[in-house]
Amino acid sequence: MKPAATNSVQAAERGVCVIMAGGRGTRFWPLSRTDRPKQLQTLAGGQSLLRETYERVAPLVGPERVLVVTSGNLAAATRAELPEIPADNVITEPVGRNTAPCAVLGVGVAARLAPGAPVALLPADHFIPDDENFRQQLQEAFRMAADGPAVVTIGITPDRPETGYGYLETGEAAGPVRNGVRFVEKPDRATAESYVRGGRHFWNSGIFVWNAAHFAAMAGAYLPTVVALMAPAIESFGTGDFDAALVTAYTDCPADSIDVAVMEKLPEFVVLPAAFRWSDLGSWDAWGELAPALAGPNRGQAELVAIDSRDNVIRVDDRVVALIGVRDMIIVDTDDALLVCHKDEAQRIKEIIKCLEDRGRSDLL
Amino acid sequence: MKPAATNSVQAAERGVCVIMAGGRGTRFWPLSRTDRPKQLQTLAGGQSLLRETYERVAPLVGPERVLVVTSGNLAAATRAELPEIPADNVITEPVGRNTAPCAVLGVGVAARLAPGAPVALLPADHFIPDDENFRQQLQEAFRMAADGPAVVTIGITPDRPETGYGYLETGEAAGPVRNGVRFVEKPDRATAESYVRGGRHFWNSGIFVWNAAHFAAMAGAYLPTVVALMAPAIESFGTGDFDAALVTAYTDCPADSIDVAVMEKLPEFVVLPAAFRWSDLGSWDAWGELAPALAGPNRGQAELVAIDSRDNVIRVDDRVVALIGVRDMIIVDTDDALLVCHKDEAQRIKEIIKCLEDRGRSDLL
Repeated sequence: MKPAATNSVQAAERGVCVIMAGGRGTRFWPLSRTDRPKQLQTLAGGQSLLRETYERVAPLVGPERVLVVTSGNLAAATRAELPEIPADNVITEPVGRNTAPCAVLGVGVAARLAPGAPVALLPADHFIPDDENFRQQLQEAFRMAADGPAVVTIGITPDRPETGYGYLETGEAAGPVRNGVRFVEKPDRATAESYVRGGRHFWNSGIFVWNAAHFAAMAGAYLPTVVALMAPAIESFGTGDFDAALVTAYTDCPADSIDVAVMEKLPEFVVLPAAFRWSDLGSWDAWGELAPALAGPNRGQAELVAIDSRDNVIRVDDRVVALIGVRDMIIVDTDDALLVCHKDEAQRIKEIIKCLEDRGRSDLL
Repeated sequence: MKPAATNSVQAAERGVCVIMAGGRGTRFWPLSRTDRPKQLQTLAGGQSLLRETYERVAPLVGPERVLVVTSGNLAAATRAELPEIPADNVITEPVGRNTAPCAVLGVGVAARLAPGAPVALLPADHFIPDDENFRQQLQEAFRMAADGPAVVTIGITPDRPETGYGYLETGEAAGPVRNGVRFVEKPDRATAESYVRGGRHFWNSGIFVWNAAHFAAMAGAYLPTVVALMAPAIESFGTGDFDAALVTAYTDCPADSIDVAVMEKLPEFVVLPAAFRWSDLGSWDAWGELAPALAGPNRGQAELVAIDSRDNVIRVDDRVVALIGVRDMIIVDTDDALLVCHKDEAQRIKEIIKCLEDRGRSDLL
């Protein structure tokens, strides 16, 4: 028995999880609101998506190794949602600057919490019902990233020629993983169809597991300004100066996507094809696919009476819904707003948001 | 000056108005409910349709000559809506038996209140914005019915080939009125079009003004059973026996429509073409035609944000409505029920009612 050595190996492989939880989730308006956005809503499973994300990783890394980066207005709600993690582990961005500053900050703080540990960057608002499989693969990714200059991306095997996602192009399979060839932006339909047929392309899940030193090197190379701005804030993590340092860092920080700024430029990466079910819950329609079947047939969550009405997605919690001759609609009713939207037009919900902003109705956003 | 004679003429011409206010108004579900049906809702103008109907006639006949026949469950709400009229003047049918028993009872009680006075039978739930013109014509009809065995029906000049209404066929014009030829049931489209072109057909408004003795004779001829059953109740009007007598009368009373049982069989009648605007407000769609214009263009009553959405009828009082890519829908949201219904399917709202009844959800009806 060599308990010390075993513990040492386990410690090296035990990663830190950085949950990126700052989005507004406008595509889920009117349920999702500025102060109660998508990740804090119960959209799949019995708890908020953020809570589900946390519970998916906590058994692997422990609550003190979970960091959540969110926006300032969500600090209290986020801490209330995750009472197990240290309050300092909920980091609030003073302003949104896309995902690159969030990643640099998160991975930097992770390195202060657990020097040398691999770091997973995780979206807070995806649907992943197979917790056990997810944890096994996350552990596998940590193991790979613990050893050397690696980044492991989790790829989703496409089941349809989705044109709304980025893809990971890979080489041939080598054991459970594949060598990444390149990141591909949203393809056109014909290209997406060839990807599905070819078997070498995977959806980019936005889940990345980094060797910490490798991240520092890559971020230093591709995001030197962001790294320089974030360094004092990271340095002050855990002190009373942290919040002020964040304000200073973010004020001048450029907005950038971690995918565009870093991932797409990586000389090498590894793709681990997911062995779990996944949805990015990117729209009410995507939510409808996972929601319970209702009469009609329709899908969603509602007490429904349907006459000659089918293929609707309905989310109404507090009243009966009666449909007659209605097809392909998204219907969401809340205390202060009712949305009826043709499924083909769901991406235009942001125009509603804009219109309400113009009317000064921030109470509805 | 012959004041006595003048008074006598005025008295003879001053009619009684019987407002028939017993309907459930299921076509306006979910706004209209069993205990708060269409006639008690604010659908046009600033007050309930019943109140608007009352205020239209009261200046002509006085509150004590207004009778309202409604159903038992609406007695309190109806009296509260019309506090000016004597409480006894709100007569409540123990069960609904269509319009014939209601008419026999109403005209019978009217004859007890004002023997010999002409009697107008009026629906409680129509939209008639031109009060002055209406009263002038009602007075004209009373004058005609006061003199002898006459019944005056008010006809609406058709502005479209409506196939959902009954028509009054007339002869040539003779002064302000026309001799009625016959009542015509709902015609087919081609027939309705010929009616509109021909100029001799009018919509049956359901507003009838009777000479009281003539009504008694006609009802005696065509509805002898109903007349016999109602006689003891009418006799006991104003006494403590009235309600019990009504229960007795209605228990065995057959259900019949006054149009079918009497009007369609009349040997003679007079048609007075309406000089006022009129709508029977027979559906949400009809309501939409009278409701304010909203952006889109749409119609109704709501705080609306519309993107690529037109020709919808919307009634939502307490929340913002956002529509994207929605056309030709009726959208009505209340505290406990949301209806979304294609305009072409509005007649199927009764199927929703039936379905909710089957589910035991009388709380929603």
